[in-house]
Amino acid sequence: MNAWQGFKGDHWKSSIDVRDFIQHNYTEYQGDDSFLEPIAPSTDKLWTKLQELFEVQHQKNGVYDMDVDIPATITSHQPGYLIQTEEKIVGLQTDVPLKQAFMPFGGIKMAQNALTSNGYETNEEMSKIFTDFRKTHNQGVFDAYTPEMRLARKNKIITGLPDAYGRGRIIGDYRRIALYGIDFLMEQKKKDHALTGYKEMNDDVIRLREEISEQYRALADMKEMAASYGFDISKPAANASEAIQWTYFGYLAAIKSQNGAAMSIGRISAFLDIYIQRDLDNGVITEFEAQELIDHLIMKLRMVKFARTPEYNQLFSGYPIWATLSIAGMGLDGRSLVTKNDFRILHTLTNMGPSPEPNLTVLYSSHLPEGFRTYSAKIAKESSSIQFENDDLLRANWGSDDCGIACCVSATVIGKDMQFFGARANLAKAVLYAINGGVDEKTKMQVAPNFRPMTGDTLDFEDFMSKYTDILDWLAELYVNTLNIIHYMHDKYAYEAPQLALMDSDLRRTFATGIAGISHATDSIMAIKHGNVKVIRDEDGMAIDYVPANEFPTYGNDQKEADDMANWILTYFMNQIKRHHTYRNSTPTTSLLTITSNVVYGKATGNTPDGRRAGKPLAPGANPSYRDGKFLGEKHGLLASLNSTARLDYTHALDGISNTQTINPNGLGKDDETRINNLRNVLDGYFDKGGYHINVNVFTNELLLDAQKHPEKYPNLTIRVSGYAVKFRDLTPEQQADVISRTSHDFM
Amino acid sequence: MNAWQGFKGDHWKSSIDVRDFIQHNYTEYQGDDSFLEPIAPSTDKLWTKLQELFEVQHQKNGVYDMDVDIPATITSHQPGYLIQTEEKIVGLQTDVPLKQAFMPFGGIKMAQNALTSNGYETNEEMSKIFTDFRKTHNQGVFDAYTPEMRLARKNKIITGLPDAYGRGRIIGDYRRIALYGIDFLMEQKKKDHALTGYKEMNDDVIRLREEISEQYRALADMKEMAASYGFDISKPAANASEAIQWTYFGYLAAIKSQNGAAMSIGRISAFLDIYIQRDLDNGVITEFEAQELIDHLIMKLRMVKFARTPEYNQLFSGYPIWATLSIAGMGLDGRSLVTKNDFRILHTLTNMGPSPEPNLTVLYSSHLPEGFRTYSAKIAKESSSIQFENDDLLRANWGSDDCGIACCVSATVIGKDMQFFGARANLAKAVLYAINGGVDEKTKMQVAPNFRPMTGDTLDFEDFMSKYTDILDWLAELYVNTLNIIHYMHDKYAYEAPQLALMDSDLRRTFATGIAGISHATDSIMAIKHGNVKVIRDEDGMAIDYVPANEFPTYGNDQKEADDMANWILTYFMNQIKRHHTYRNSTPTTSLLTITSNVVYGKATGNTPDGRRAGKPLAPGANPSYRDGKFLGEKHGLLASLNSTARLDYTHALDGISNTQTINPNGLGKDDETRINNLRNVLDGYFDKGGYHINVNVFTNELLLDAQKHPEKYPNLTIRVSGYAVKFRDLTPEQQADVISRTSHDFM
Repeated sequence: MNAWQGFKGDHWKSSIDVRDFIQHNYTEYQGDDSFLEPIAPSTDKLWTKLQELFEVQHQKNGVYDMDVDIPATITSHQPGYLIQTEEKIVGLQTDVPLKQAFMPFGGIKMAQNALTSNGYETNEEMSKIFTDFRKTHNQGVFDAYTPEMRLARKNKIITGLPDAYGRGRIIGDYRRIALYGIDFLMEQKKKDHALTGYKEMNDDVIRLREEISEQYRALADMKEMAASYGFDISKPAANASEAIQWTYFGYLAAIKSQNGAAMSIGRISAFLDIYIQRDLDNGVITEFEAQELIDHLIMKLRMVKFARTPEYNQLFSGYPIWATLSIAGMGLDGRSLVTKNDFRILHTLTNMGPSPEPNLTVLYSSHLPEGFRTYSAKIAKESSSIQFENDDLLRANWGSDDCGIACCVSATVIGKDMQFFGARANLAKAVLYAINGGVDEKTKMQVAPNFRPMTGDTLDFEDFMSKYTDILDWLAELYVNTLNIIHYMHDKYAYEAPQLALMDSDLRRTFATGIAGISHATDSIMAIKHGNVKVIRDEDGMAIDYVPANEFPTYGNDQKEADDMANWILTYFMNQIKRHHTYRNSTPTTSLLTITSNVVYGKATGNTPDGRRAGKPLAPGANPSYRDGKFLGEKHGLLASLNSTARLDYTHALDGISNTQTINPNGLGKDDETRINNLRNVLDGYFDKGGYHINVNVFTNELLLDAQKHPEKYPNLTIRVSGYAVKFRDLTPEQQADVISRTSHDFM
Repeated sequence: MNAWQGFKGDHWKSSIDVRDFIQHNYTEYQGDDSFLEPIAPSTDKLWTKLQELFEVQHQKNGVYDMDVDIPATITSHQPGYLIQTEEKIVGLQTDVPLKQAFMPFGGIKMAQNALTSNGYETNEEMSKIFTDFRKTHNQGVFDAYTPEMRLARKNKIITGLPDAYGRGRIIGDYRRIALYGIDFLMEQKKKDHALTGYKEMNDDVIRLREEISEQYRALADMKEMAASYGFDISKPAANASEAIQWTYFGYLAAIKSQNGAAMSIGRISAFLDIYIQRDLDNGVITEFEAQELIDHLIMKLRMVKFARTPEYNQLFSGYPIWATLSIAGMGLDGRSLVTKNDFRILHTLTNMGPSPEPNLTVLYSSHLPEGFRTYSAKIAKESSSIQFENDDLLRANWGSDDCGIACCVSATVIGKDMQFFGARANLAKAVLYAINGGVDEKTKMQVAPNFRPMTGDTLDFEDFMSKYTDILDWLAELYVNTLNIIHYMHDKYAYEAPQLALMDSDLRRTFATGIAGISHATDSIMAIKHGNVKVIRDEDGMAIDYVPANEFPTYGNDQKEADDMANWILTYFMNQIKRHHTYRNSTPTTSLLTITSNVVYGKATGNTPDGRRAGKPLAPGANPSYRDGKFLGEKHGLLASLNSTARLDYTHALDGISNTQTINPNGLGKDDETRINNLRNVLDGYFDKGGYHINVNVFTNELLLDAQKHPEKYPNLTIRVSGYAVKFRDLTPEQQADVISRTSHDFM
């Protein structure tokens, strides 16, 4: 087969096994960044044009244009281009760059809310179709919710549930199209269909058989869509240009038809490098052209846009779509998976400047070649646009060197796993429910069962713990049941056929839950135990504020007792989650990740016993609390903070642990070289200690304050927030304030 | 509450219990038919107009008009009338009488096939909506089918599956609207929703919770639809006219939005009589007006039409819709449930002449008052339009005196049970599969597993039985699994919300299977055992014909060994069916019923060892074989035939046993009075012996032969075929021939 000429290995040829192909054919690169090429003229023209469009989009509050009456499917739109003659990689979500598609399958009300909130009229005919004839996910969910679920949702003890937006986080193995071509993949799906079920045709078997048929049709649609751009993807890609194009077409099919919250592209770096290296070796392309191809691909990922509601934008600020692209990582055989392509991909941040998307994610290990570790530290320092995840933990816990990150910190084995994304429960608010007998401190509604509240002027630790576990038990059950409904309905009404079509049919499903407010829950319990917390009550006797008398250990300061308490909360809650039936018998996981919703969650959470003030943002993800009042916050510098975070037990938080840090450049060293080396050493140490993830920001607070005042001066200023990168000017004012109030470490 | 003034009893007032209301309030009638009133002028005008429309419809091959682009829902159409000023009971399926609605939810291809086969253009926009956006039942089924299922279907070993039409047979308790009003019913559904599920939110619970929400919306839609006709059905009906109108609105909601094969109305006779009797007692209406109301209701049921495909019409000939209306029956307390209304309903056949619809069904018992038994025998003799079912068996096996018949012979407890209708397996063909090692005798395809065929010149009984049970085991598994898919998808894509809205939320579901060809299977086995059957083989050695040398016992002649064998087949197959997982853990049942599909099934079935010729229709339902060749057929008269059928074990065929008989009037007696009395005595005896069902035709074969030649002379000639009544002229030529070739008993 000509397309596979020169490729080694056998197993991947007879059955789908992209990893096997990579392992047999990639060329590890141990050098430095000196080979990298500058921006090509075509890239420059395209990027200039795109920036003009971005500016228009920014002026129009993030919406360049919107479709009103074409329900988006893989084949719903005619081909579209940025500058057709310059594009080496083609394909837009709609027929016009940045134009947001109309995606009603998740919920017609949301799709229309996205339109009206941006000044567009809705189409009556579409309302009728997606109300009278085609039910949508959101309607299905609310048809099945219990009053208790609605109440918990309204009171934000469970928050940000994907019942009014697409769950996302499902990564198709888009590489399969390039390696095998669509026809082979369709054949395999046909075989899988034949092998699904034996003797008993029960609901699970029927559902999967139908899904595989949907996947099969999605593959046919991809072929049709690619053909409209003039490409025949029925056969394998024959060169680097085709390999990139074919892979992108797979991803394009997903983002054309699904507006999941996180639409990650997976792990394509070493894979595509194999094709590039073959072309380079055969003199088919030059390094300059290789970089041009990669730049063009990355530019496409920078263009992905979804129509979203104001409520969604509050939760996930700055229009993230998490086109998460995972690079580097170690192989199971001890070689690193670093190729020149990992450099090329990071180099797009230099050629085209920083950008929030794609969400560039380095799978880090101190065993990676020093050249790459240094270069990634350099790019992190310069761009504040990339994140790092602990590849040693990934391999050990997921049993694969072909993991990719979905969204922010959620690992999946590419093509083998899918995730049921499940937002998060607010365990800081749960502390207050334990104290007030299940009554919400903001709304005064009885949300949890009528548990006995804590009485008295101070809080007794043992009494509190007994009540807190009662609340966690109740919450875990309610949370899992709520998610069971959501995923049942999502599969029923908004099934992700294009992504699943590019994955194994008998995949592993994880059932992701999440914890918000871990630091405040931890510190509050520490305050109750050691702080002799005085309770202030309102006229009804409800606890509304807390005054710790004494100092207490806090999370984020390398104080083992506090860090252990964080792990206790995580483990206890996770174990409760595990006790329940999960949809499709999926494997339950949890995360310590809030994305930017920490602001919204904090707004809904009253004063907490650790001294945090009501309404103030929660610390995001697994971050230690910010300084607030007398006791709270990181006081012992970057390394102490990292030590605490590294102590969190990833095996109980397999959906990921998010940690966002801002470092003052001067805190890192006097000159750039020192700073880069120090940052690299910090990363080595943090990950060797078991830290799972870090968002690295290197700038001063003064820069942010200036950008807050003069946004026009910083159109491209990109920073890492919890789980993604964002243009600072696109954050809500509240979230800008939150970012500025974070600890910026002046010393290590 | 004014609407309930004068009504007795308590339980039905606080929770939905229509039976309890009936039991406390109905007035048994033990008299004769002398009170009945003739046709009213309004009825006459309406019926004259309707017959004109029927004539147009007949000229246009059964289609008066068709909607092309309004997907039918409860509220999709404006009100429509026949002659508005004359109609005491209003409501049409669409806005024009007899106009067939566009119903794509079951399958867009079928809906459009129904259009194009009748010369209508299809609407492109509808194709797009119901292909790209709204998947339909049929597509879902075929997405999940296995190749084996497709093969079995194609080879017609399993036949007539509701995968290309609506399953039907689900009877809403339409009386509930009259008794309680919609608002009360909505309140109850809200309560049911709250009580569905506990602790674990699994797929079953989620599905039911969503369904109850759909039901709730359907109730609201009914209210809206009724309001468009100027009626407020939110409150209970206050008089007879409203009670009939409210009840009909419920049924109308079902037939507006669902085109199930059988759309039965249930058991409304005694219920409505209570309202009529109250109005009569209070001088609100006269008997003449009461009859007028009933005539108008029945006329509405005569007007129900669905757009159907040619394939469907082949299977179920003559446009039946099974608006089955069950009357009479005994009460659990020993009183009969016969009221004047049962007379009024049968009297419609006199006032307006015979008619196939509604499918009038007498729940018979020899304990019914003699006046009614005589009157129903009289009407049966005069109209050949009614059927009888054994009410003693119903009460004993279903535990209720509020059963109704769905379709032909399938009992359900009104408002408490629903059925998953499942067509039938051809057990006559299965005999041939056993002989030929699973190879189909018509297509030569290997359909069943590669079993060892029977070799040799004659058939050995023991060898055959071992092979036949292997085939039945295989067939039962495949059949149940196929139905599991169909019902999963039907619930998913074509859920019968209006009917289910009028039933209990936690209902019992039966999983109906069916057996075709029981008489030929039985007689073939008898031939193999006793007939020394010589096998004739084709050039490949495949058995293609059979010549019994000796006489053998046959079913239908009161020969116990043959009748026992029929029961053995039924019991063995049913026990195999029961071994498998059924969708929603429904209760498996089976029927001996083919409707008119016996012709199509026979066409696909080769020569059988009983001597039946290839391609000839199977005997319908549980009917004994017609005379065919030397050995086959009923030879011992009506009573011997009935004795055989009565021997079939209803407890193993709870979905019903269908028996259609034609009696020469002269065989019944010399004058009308004798004939009526003899027919009543035959019914008494048959049902007392345990016969389950009988379709009574009283005419000579000469009449049919004349009607075949001169259809214009007999526009309203109605006959009973297997399970329903039909206008003779609407049958296909093949089915007319089949009816004529049936045994017409000249002696008892």
